Amino acid sequence: MHDETAERVALLRTASGAASQVFTTLLTRSPISRIDVAKLTGLSQAAVTKAVNPLVAAGLVDDRLQAARDGQPGRPASPIAVIPEALLAIGVKVNVDEIIAVATDLRTRVLASERAPLTARDPGTVVDAVAAICARLETSLGDAAGRLVRIGVSVSGDVDAAAGVVRESGIMAWTGVDLGDRLRERLDVPVLIENDVRALTIGEHWFGVGVGTASFAIVTIGRGIGSGLHVNGEVVEGAFGVAGEIGHLPLAAPDRICACGRRGCVEAVAGASAIARAVSEAHGRPVAIDEAARLAHEGDAAATAAFREAAAIIGTAIASLVNLAGPELVIIGGEGVSNFDLFDASLRAAFAEHAFGAAGRCRIVVRPHTFEDWARGAAAAAIRVLVR
Amino acid sequence: MHDETAERVALLRTASGAASQVFTTLLTRSPISRIDVAKLTGLSQAAVTKAVNPLVAAGLVDDRLQAARDGQPGRPASPIAVIPEALLAIGVKVNVDEIIAVATDLRTRVLASERAPLTARDPGTVVDAVAAICARLETSLGDAAGRLVRIGVSVSGDVDAAAGVVRESGIMAWTGVDLGDRLRERLDVPVLIENDVRALTIGEHWFGVGVGTASFAIVTIGRGIGSGLHVNGEVVEGAFGVAGEIGHLPLAAPDRICACGRRGCVEAVAGASAIARAVSEAHGRPVAIDEAARLAHEGDAAATAAFREAAAIIGTAIASLVNLAGPELVIIGGEGVSNFDLFDASLRAAFAEHAFGAAGRCRIVVRPHTFEDWARGAAAAAIRVLVR
Ligand SMILES: [Zn+2]
Ligand SMILES: [Zn+2]
Repeated sequence: MHDETAERVALLRTASGAASQVFTTLLTRSPISRIDVAKLTGLSQAAVTKAVNPLVAAGLVDDRLQAARDGQPGRPASPIAVIPEALLAIGVKVNVDEIIAVATDLRTRVLASERAPLTARDPGTVVDAVAAICARLETSLGDAAGRLVRIGVSVSGDVDAAAGVVRESGIMAWTGVDLGDRLRERLDVPVLIENDVRALTIGEHWFGVGVGTASFAIVTIGRGIGSGLHVNGEVVEGAFGVAGEIGHLPLAAPDRICACGRRGCVEAVAGASAIARAVSEAHGRPVAIDEAARLAHEGDAAATAAFREAAAIIGTAIASLVNLAGPELVIIGGEGVSNFDLFDASLRAAFAEHAFGAAGRCRIVVRPHTFEDWARGAAAAAIRVLVR
Repeated sequence: MHDETAERVALLRTASGAASQVFTTLLTRSPISRIDVAKLTGLSQAAVTKAVNPLVAAGLVDDRLQAARDGQPGRPASPIAVIPEALLAIGVKVNVDEIIAVATDLRTRVLASERAPLTARDPGTVVDAVAAICARLETSLGDAAGRLVRIGVSVSGDVDAAAGVVRESGIMAWTGVDLGDRLRERLDVPVLIENDVRALTIGEHWFGVGVGTASFAIVTIGRGIGSGLHVNGEVVEGAFGVAGEIGHLPLAAPDRICACGRRGCVEAVAGASAIARAVSEAHGRPVAIDEAARLAHEGDAAATAAFREAAAIIGTAIASLVNLAGPELVIIGGEGVSNFDLFDASLRAAFAEHAFGAAGRCRIVVRPHTFEDWARGAAAAAIRVLVR
C-alpha cells in the first residue's frame, strides 16, 4: 500500500460522524454543491467546508471542478466531487460452482474482472480460489494495485459480518466457517465477509436504484430465495446478523420440508430444486431446473403448475414483506429472473391478493443482475465499512 | 397560546437538521453533557453549543444544572437538560367503545388524564368525544394550557398520518375518514392522526425500552393483531403509510376469512373474535372472549385448543417478522396480554420452530401497556412531528 493510500484510509477511518456523513454524501451524489451537501446532511455550510478541506488535501475529493451552469470555480455553488479512483476495492461473489471477482473504484465502477470455476465447495478450495483470483486482479491493476484498500467477499447464507464467519450456508453446505480469518492469512488487504443479497442491496442503495428511493427491497429468486431490505436510510442488518430471510418465511404447508430443516419454508416450494423435484416426480424421471423451465414454456402441465405454485408463494412472501416494512419498491433479481415470464402473472396475483391497503401500491420490478453486479455489491459492502 | 410558547414552537419548527438532532437527543437523554450530545449526534462541540444556546434562551433547555459528580456549573462536563414542561401535548387513544386522553409534558409524563365512553363509533360521535375530552383536559391544565402545542390522536388501522386520514379501520368500521380535517375544525391546537401501534412504538423508542435497544418491534395481541417496527434509528412508517401489518400476514389456511376480506390472515385465527368464534362453535352457543379465557383456564378442551392455535400462529408471525427484520427485542402488548399464560408456551414453541439461525436470539418479552401508555404514545407521535 502506498503512503498516500495509507493516509487516505487513516483519514476516513478516524473521521468524525459529520465528516463521514459528508464523505458518504459525496460518494453517492457527486458532483454536488456544498450547499446541497449541507442540506442533505443537516450540517451547516461551515461544518461541510471543515469536513471537505482535509478530504481535498488528501486527494479524495476534487473542489476544482468547472461549475457547468450556476457558478464560477471557487464560488459556493460550484460543485465538488469524490475522486473515485483515489482508493480501490475488490468484490468477490462466491457461487456454488464459480467465483466472480471485480476490481472497482470507490463508486464500484469495474476496472477489471475475473471468473474462476470452483471444483469443490469446501472452505479450503474456496479460500485458495479467492486468494488466486485476487492475485490475478492485482496483477491486472498494475501500479494501481497500490491503491487497493479493501476486499469484500459475499456468500449466500447466514453471515456474521462483524466476526467474518459464515454461520450457515445451505448452498455451500457450510456451518460456522471462519472465512474472514482464513482469508486474512492469505491476503494483505483487509477483508469483509457479507451475505450476498445484503451486499447487493448495499450496492443498489448507494449506486443503483436506492439513490432516488427512500425504501426498497431486493428479492432474489433461483436456487435460494433471499431478500435485502433498505429502510430508514440504511440496509437492515439484523441485531444478530440475520435479516431478509424471506425464503424461510413459513408460508407453505408443513409437509414441505426445507433444506434448512424447517417446515413450510417458502424455499421448500419456490427454490429451483423444489421446482425441479416437483416436475421430476410428475414425470417419473430426474428433470433439472433448466429442463423444467423448457417444459413449462412448451406448455407441460406439471411444469407449468410447479412454476405457478412457486410464483404464488413468492408473491405471498413479497406481500408479507411489504405488509410489515412498507417499501416503495421491490426489485426482483437472482438467476431465476431469466425465466421470469413463468412467474410473473401468478406472483403478481398472489401479491395483490395479500398486500394490505396502501402497501399494495409498492411497485414490483424485475432487474436481471449479472454476477458482476453481485461482485460489485461485495465491493460496495467493503467500501461502506471503510467510510463509516 | 402564549407568545413565549409560540416562540418556542417557531424555534423548533425552523431548526436546522443539526439543531433538531441536538434537541431530540436532549429530549430522550436528559440530563446529558454537551460532550455526550456531540458524540451521539456526530456533531462538533462547537456545533452543539451553537444549537443549544437559542434553546436555552427560549426556555426549552436548562444549562444551569448542578453537575453532580464530574464538573462545576458552566464547565463543559456539566450536564444540560430539556425543560419538559416548556411545551405540553395531549395524546388521545380511540378505542371502539372508549377514548382515553392524557395531557403530558415533552417527555410524555402524564399531567392529567381522562376517559370517556363512546356510545357509537361513527366519525361524528368520535370527533365530538375527542373535542370534549380535550376541552376537559385543557380545563384541568389551567394556566398551563397556554403551553399546549400539539394533540396526537391514535386509531387502529391503515392511517395516512401525512394527510390526517384513516384510510381503513376494521375495528371502527371506517373507510377514508378525514379525521384530521374534522378535528382541526373543532380544536385550536394542531392535530396529528397516527396508527395506534406506530404511536406506541414511537413512545417506546423515545421514552421506553427503545433508549437502550438498537432495534425492536412491538406486537399487540387482542381484538386486532398489530405491530410496530423500529430499526435503523426510526420507526418504520411505510412508503405509503402502511407497515407492521403482522395481523394480515397470510400464514393461516385460505379457508380462514379475515375481517379485512382477505384469506388466511393471522388475525382470522388469532384475533379475539376468531378465538371466541371457535369456542362458540365448539360449545354450540355464543361465548365471548372473556368467557373463552375463563374456560381455557378451567381446562376446557375447545377453549384451550383455540388459544393454542392462536398462539402458534402469532409465534409463527413473530418468527416471520424476525426473519425479515432481525430485531433485538420483541415486546408483546395489547389487551390480550392479560391472558398471556394461555399463549405463552405455544407462541414461543412456534417462534423457536420458525426463527432462522441467529435471528432466533431475539428476546420476546411481555409488557402490559395500559391504555394511558397508548395515549402517551399518541402524545409522543405528535411531539415527534413538532421537533423534526
Ligand atoms: Zn427454510
Ligand atoms: Zn386480514
